[in-house]
Amino acid sequence: MTAAADHPFVAELIDRHQETLAGALAAAASRDYWSPYPEFPKAYGETGLDDGKAAFDALLGSPFAIDGQPSDGEHVGGETSPYGPVLGVTYPHAEPQQLITAMQAAQPAWAAAGPAARAAVSLEILARINARSHEFAHAVMHTTGQAYGMAFQAGGPHAQDRGLEAVAYAYAEQTRLPGKASWTKPQGKRDPLSMVKEFTAVPRGLALLIGCNTFPTWNGYPGLFASFATGNPVLVKPHPRATLPLALTVRIAREVLTEAGFDPNLVCLAAEHEGSTVAATLAVRPEIRIIDYTGSTSFGDWLETNARQAQVYTEKAGVNTVVIDSTDNYRGMLGNLAFSLSLYSGQMCTTPQNLLIPRTGVRTDEGSKTYDEVVADLAAAISGLLADDAKASAILGAVVNPGVLQRTVAAASGEYGDLALAPRVVTSTEYPAAVIRTPALVKADSDKPDDRAAFLEECFGPITFAVAVESPEAAVELLRRTVKEQGAMTAAAYTISEEVEAALVDACLDAGVSLSLNLTGGVFANQTAAFSDLHGTGANPAANSAYCDGAFVASRFRSVEVRRHN
Amino acid sequence: MTAAADHPFVAELIDRHQETLAGALAAAASRDYWSPYPEFPKAYGETGLDDGKAAFDALLGSPFAIDGQPSDGEHVGGETSPYGPVLGVTYPHAEPQQLITAMQAAQPAWAAAGPAARAAVSLEILARINARSHEFAHAVMHTTGQAYGMAFQAGGPHAQDRGLEAVAYAYAEQTRLPGKASWTKPQGKRDPLSMVKEFTAVPRGLALLIGCNTFPTWNGYPGLFASFATGNPVLVKPHPRATLPLALTVRIAREVLTEAGFDPNLVCLAAEHEGSTVAATLAVRPEIRIIDYTGSTSFGDWLETNARQAQVYTEKAGVNTVVIDSTDNYRGMLGNLAFSLSLYSGQMCTTPQNLLIPRTGVRTDEGSKTYDEVVADLAAAISGLLADDAKASAILGAVVNPGVLQRTVAAASGEYGDLALAPRVVTSTEYPAAVIRTPALVKADSDKPDDRAAFLEECFGPITFAVAVESPEAAVELLRRTVKEQGAMTAAAYTISEEVEAALVDACLDAGVSLSLNLTGGVFANQTAAFSDLHGTGANPAANSAYCDGAFVASRFRSVEVRRHN
Repeated sequence: MTAAADHPFVAELIDRHQETLAGALAAAASRDYWSPYPEFPKAYGETGLDDGKAAFDALLGSPFAIDGQPSDGEHVGGETSPYGPVLGVTYPHAEPQQLITAMQAAQPAWAAAGPAARAAVSLEILARINARSHEFAHAVMHTTGQAYGMAFQAGGPHAQDRGLEAVAYAYAEQTRLPGKASWTKPQGKRDPLSMVKEFTAVPRGLALLIGCNTFPTWNGYPGLFASFATGNPVLVKPHPRATLPLALTVRIAREVLTEAGFDPNLVCLAAEHEGSTVAATLAVRPEIRIIDYTGSTSFGDWLETNARQAQVYTEKAGVNTVVIDSTDNYRGMLGNLAFSLSLYSGQMCTTPQNLLIPRTGVRTDEGSKTYDEVVADLAAAISGLLADDAKASAILGAVVNPGVLQRTVAAASGEYGDLALAPRVVTSTEYPAAVIRTPALVKADSDKPDDRAAFLEECFGPITFAVAVESPEAAVELLRRTVKEQGAMTAAAYTISEEVEAALVDACLDAGVSLSLNLTGGVFANQTAAFSDLHGTGANPAANSAYCDGAFVASRFRSVEVRRHN
Repeated sequence: MTAAADHPFVAELIDRHQETLAGALAAAASRDYWSPYPEFPKAYGETGLDDGKAAFDALLGSPFAIDGQPSDGEHVGGETSPYGPVLGVTYPHAEPQQLITAMQAAQPAWAAAGPAARAAVSLEILARINARSHEFAHAVMHTTGQAYGMAFQAGGPHAQDRGLEAVAYAYAEQTRLPGKASWTKPQGKRDPLSMVKEFTAVPRGLALLIGCNTFPTWNGYPGLFASFATGNPVLVKPHPRATLPLALTVRIAREVLTEAGFDPNLVCLAAEHEGSTVAATLAVRPEIRIIDYTGSTSFGDWLETNARQAQVYTEKAGVNTVVIDSTDNYRGMLGNLAFSLSLYSGQMCTTPQNLLIPRTGVRTDEGSKTYDEVVADLAAAISGLLADDAKASAILGAVVNPGVLQRTVAAASGEYGDLALAPRVVTSTEYPAAVIRTPALVKADSDKPDDRAAFLEECFGPITFAVAVESPEAAVELLRRTVKEQGAMTAAAYTISEEVEAALVDACLDAGVSLSLNLTGGVFANQTAAFSDLHGTGANPAANSAYCDGAFVASRFRSVEVRRHN
């Protein structure tokens, strides 16, 4: 069971992908921009979009075959696009024990393959996923409600980047110890003690990926590939409303594994009916040693409390804050914020929720602005950005599920507070059944207990609170407390004051959230770039881990040593 | 709160210790022999031993002062040397809240100091501990019962090596991300997006070290220095019978911190009366975010279950196995095993407990040996090694506590099974009150349920089971099952068969234990060398972590990013 991948295709894959792996390792160290996966749709060929659409259409209304995966013969699935159409795709169902047995049988050869072979197989899977980015874009669009452009980028190349990043970290971590080392210890006048020591990375066991509704690939690939590249078979349990993108991923992984001479059951799909509780059943199985999860705080906390046999990596709810103290580019700030709040209808775990605006006013290059002026100008910026329904649709996407729609309705009725901007119904000519809403901008006062109760809870979806605070100092303290108590995936601020900036940096380091300062152009608080930005920190209640650092991969395997004299 | 250590002494320390840090990083990567701390007592000067004795004697019978640490005015302590003398040292006592408040106040400056300053301060602490290795040796000897030679090496330079190893890993992990990075993303014909990104390692919070009775420094330094070097204040809760070595450590750490301009309360001592439950009280305090523990499985499991707010690193009980299949150096094997089993009266978490010997016999360079012959020859080797009381004392040390003595008595009375070798009372002329016993060698049969019940539980102390098994294959399977079910810190085997060796390696990789093969000289299964050997794996129930790998340090801090356009 020493590390060796004898299959000629594996050797070919190691060779084929070594440059990409080296590029990823170099980028992760330098943190400069890098990606092997073009983010422009046209990079995928003249007919790429149409081919992807055709491939996606061919999947609809049919059973989705997963050759060789154990099944109880049942098919499940009930995905409906947030844009209207029923997908009609059904997936083979299996009992947990069937899948676990098959995955355990597949594990030894994968454990023995070693880090280089595992990285190469992972990169081949990612390369094939990449080549089908347009097909994935359609699958992501019609399960999450993301607009096509975003579904393509975030669901395609950017998700692939995050997967590759995890593979690179996993490879680096597993190769920190040499495979074989000599040890010679002087013994004075006697002969030295001399040994040969071999180090092998051994996987923890089976890994479980519990996928989310909004970013099945972007939030799924880091955990999936981190576990897989460290030698653990991965059971993919997608969200029942966003199964297709991960089912495609599983099928591609199985194709590559088969071609490379491995058992395809190293990657299996655990499809379920909506309302099933298979995730909870699987999560506490003793064979499951790693869990990656993105979703609600309640189930994330449940996993952390109950899945004691596993390493559990969670990304849960949070409340993201923007402090607006001062700016030398008022228009740029308004435009940047308007886009951040509108993108995918605020349905990103990274979307700012609370804008903290001092009652004492905001210094800008257009003079000092009162709280009311800033709120009105931001409302106007959002309205302007989303004035045209077609353009608005391309930014907003569709409302992902009834829970978000309900909160939008509640916001519109003034339930969260007075509205500076009411949500507007947007109609898509292509998808008339799509539920599309512009953001609600709710006015709030940090001194009012009812307001505080509303804005200090995660209000997932297109609802933003413009919170009046006493002063910039009070804003910084509210940011700090919000992150510590509610958690946050992102924080942002606008300031031209050195003192305020220093206080902000101090608060963010203390509370454990990453900070975007003075974004007025084409970078947004809710976006992070793989190989450069960390996604989350693991240092506040919103997540116990980050994409991607050493801690995200280091505990997915262990090192075992064999030593002997030579 | 950016990383900066302005104190001139800190700059001096960074300079003074950079070569040692570089050496440790290089050794941890190459895994060849290396240490900056000489293991020969004479390397510490002509009068080193006497000076250390005098320094130790000066501590006895007095209150141990810890300047500047909060206290409730009480003094506690009741250490008695396993060699007889009452130490009479008392330590300042404090309420948990007093210590926690003081440590929290000290934290921000340490968090801001950055990885290089923290490594340098850590290395200065280790250098001062190293210079006082003889004093530490006396303190370790008279709290653990280790013989002086072992107390010097394992409690001194080897413990310091493990501390330095943890510092090096912590430094490497915190500097994998650059402090500052540029990011430039091309935008086709438009200007590229350009940002500056700063990454800061932020500590988790307060760390708690729960020390053990047998190896207060060797098992304490990895966690202590890993937490400290990653920015976390450390509260040291020693075992009430082995407080002095860690109290000295705390005092030296506080001296260096004070000289370097930091608050000495970054390292505090939580001394207690024996029978107190302060460890359990501290372990669930919300401020405690990291716990390192060595000791019983029951309290280790309790910590893992209840200290949910903390990262918990545990080393617990295990059952270490040696498979004896065949050897080309029968005398060497017997001598190596005899020493392994005798060293510190088997009171090491790494001491072999079960020797699995096929009933079909053992092929050797002296012909085939039956189970009975191997057992008799091993008994003779142990008796021979320990024939002389003075020499025996220097190997065995003293029995550390009444629990071990009780098991020795039980073994002598045949409670664990028939004896191949009865424990012998050894008398020390220097310390007539010391309780010293040679190992008991108990005969056992793997087919007998009563025998299995006895040898498949940890029997900590000088008790070894010579277990008759059906065949080499059965031995390998019993090794595998023992590790998986009972946990193990070490495994060893003697074989000249390629098939048996392959099966052994396979079983050890599968069960997650490191393997020492065919040790017949001056390396012993129970010893691991820092920078080269891992101590434990974290892959079986005996421990959830290892000294020292990336996983041991990576989760003790988090990375927070601040990004802005440039």
